[in-house]
Amino acid sequence: MTTETLERSVDLAGQTGFGDLYARVQRFYAHQMQLFDLHDADRWAATFTEDAVFSVPTLDAPVRGREGLVANVLRNRRRQEESGEQHRHWIGMLDVRPGPDGTLRTRCYALVYVTPRGGGSRLLRVCVMEDELVPAGGDWQTRRRVVTRDDLA
Amino acid sequence: MTTETLERSVDLAGQTGFGDLYARVQRFYAHQMQLFDLHDADRWAATFTEDAVFSVPTLDAPVRGREGLVANVLRNRRRQEESGEQHRHWIGMLDVRPGPDGTLRTRCYALVYVTPRGGGSRLLRVCVMEDELVPAGGDWQTRRRVVTRDDLA
Amino acid sequence: MTTETLERSVDLAGQTGFGDLYARVQRFYAHQMQLFDLHDADRWAATFTEDAVFSVPTLDAPVRGREGLVANVLRNRRRQEESGEQHRHWIGMLDVRPGPDGTLRTRCYALVYVTPRGGGSRLLRVCVMEDELVPAGGDWQTRRRVVTRDDLA
Repeated sequence: MTTETLERSVDLAGQTGFGDLYARVQRFYAHQMQLFDLHDADRWAATFTEDAVFSVPTLDAPVRGREGLVANVLRNRRRQEESGEQHRHWIGMLDVRPGPDGTLRTRCYALVYVTPRGGGSRLLRVCVMEDELVPAGGDWQTRRRVVTRDDLA
Repeated sequence: MTTETLERSVDLAGQTGFGDLYARVQRFYAHQMQLFDLHDADRWAATFTEDAVFSVPTLDAPVRGREGLVANVLRNRRRQEESGEQHRHWIGMLDVRPGPDGTLRTRCYALVYVTPRGGGSRLLRVCVMEDELVPAGGDWQTRRRVVTRDDLA
Repeated sequence: MTTETLERSVDLAGQTGFGDLYARVQRFYAHQMQLFDLHDADRWAATFTEDAVFSVPTLDAPVRGREGLVANVLRNRRRQEESGEQHRHWIGMLDVRPGPDGTLRTRCYALVYVTPRGGGSRLLRVCVMEDELVPAGGDWQTRRRVVTRDDLA
């Protein structure tokens, strides 16, 4: 059984401009996930802050900083070149909450699909992803990410 | 073969503020589905009106009112505690149409993913979900929900 | 390994009205995919320009124009009536980029789920979809679509 809890969201429903905010965050994630699946290491890492902390159960320890993030993508690229598999990371059920200091806290579901060359696609993993986003040049950067896997819950 | 039909959507494309409306509805569902998957019975039920009617094929009869909704979530919680499975409800392809009286009618696809503890995730179900939403304190509440399952179509 | 590349997106983050634009495009796709899965051939074809070009690996050659699009949907309907399967097309990770001339270029992931009557749902296909959208009466129409399949990458 999950031990997650869900914070009560700040009510943004009435706030003007929520549409812009929410759309920008959705687009941020669309772009970030596409770059990740393309193994575009540098541009993907640039969607995180220099000092970003990335915690995901598939890694032994949290990744700290862009250098580690880049290395992680390049390792994925090597593995997938060897295996001939294409991964797709997909997020949804996105909740966005503004923090006290202009930062955003997000909570969403994340799916990973994998497709071997010439083979059948399958769902690889179901996760919950929680981010802290900071404003960066009219867009966002992820400062902290915590991913939990349903199979390890 | 499906016997569904799709109403012609009111054209909202040009309407100012559609971005806010659509984002708020997306966030409403993200929150509602997260609460459901967390078995947060009371807060989930509070996203429905007191007199909500919830029709879903997996129940023998429509659930009427929050009490029944709460009981439904608590039953899910017991089952999933026993089975050690985590369910995730995910909606997409969301169409939003304003009704005559400030209500909204929505039609979307709904997926259910299930992950056994330590096991592989799988797609459990593909559904179509149609809601009637009413304004509630700057947010929304579901007054009526009809879910159809593709496997039973 | 994918050979895709991802264009640097025009920065829309700061642009006012991005929320409206993004929501309208999301709703456009929700509607277009629902019509496709309902085999509503004429209304689905009307979401494309008269001279639309639709390239998808499952077809021997690109479909050109609405007549071909309608024929394609009717063929799908016949096949699915025979097989008793319901398909659902689902897009996500939507990136939207305004073109030079009021057109939009979009890049998203597309999934196809299939559910046999009385049977288990499954993920049929993982694709990447790239569209050129043109304004049409306050909404959009697809002028050009290129779909690539991960299993054929």
